[in-house]
Amino acid sequence: MAFWNVDTLQLQEFRPGIMSKAAIGDDLIMVCMEIAAGKEDTGHEHAFDQCGLVIAGTIEMFVGEERKTLTVHESYFIPAGLRHGWKTFDSPVKLLDISLSSKVG
Amino acid sequence: MAFWNVDTLQLQEFRPGIMSKAAIGDDLIMVCMEIAAGKEDTGHEHAFDQCGLVIAGTIEMFVGEERKTLTVHESYFIPAGLRHGWKTFDSPVKLLDISLSSKVG
Repeated sequence: MAFWNVDTLQLQEFRPGIMSKAAIGDDLIMVCMEIAAGKEDTGHEHAFDQCGLVIAGTIEMFVGEERKTLTVHESYFIPAGLRHGWKTFDSPVKLLDISLSSKVG
Repeated sequence: MAFWNVDTLQLQEFRPGIMSKAAIGDDLIMVCMEIAAGKEDTGHEHAFDQCGLVIAGTIEMFVGEERKTLTVHESYFIPAGLRHGWKTFDSPVKLLDISLSSKVG
């Protein structure tokens, strides 16, 4: 299935508080995910780039020294190796997130 | 700059009828692009995955045997090697498009 509507796409529980659906190719993984309110990733890094866009809701992210509260149609680009993290507030956030598939990354 | 607002981001002419801005990492290239009305790519293929999301406007795309008119918040995933193309109608379309950076792809 080449095409999704990310507003109406059916997601499944990936881990507690994160619902997702993934398209996985030879190189890329594209994930539509909804993160519940009140969740946090205090920071991690990995040896590949990651990027994405907020579809709905609000999320605070940091990428290296930059920190920003992102709302709808704000994008992020996380260069390989740079520490990054996020937290949600009092409502869920929906993202379209892209990184390297496990076949590569 | 880790964060963009894709609704207000300043784009520059990439080629006639296509305005764009790119974030380029070791692995990924993320491009915000606006394609003018009445443009078409009748089809091509490449040996890496490509994906993205419609931010505003309408575009017809085909990926292999699937063909769809995409509007805001509809995404596409083009597996490596699969023929794909697109055309715009009577107004521009804005996309956030992700593929492999030239450092990899």
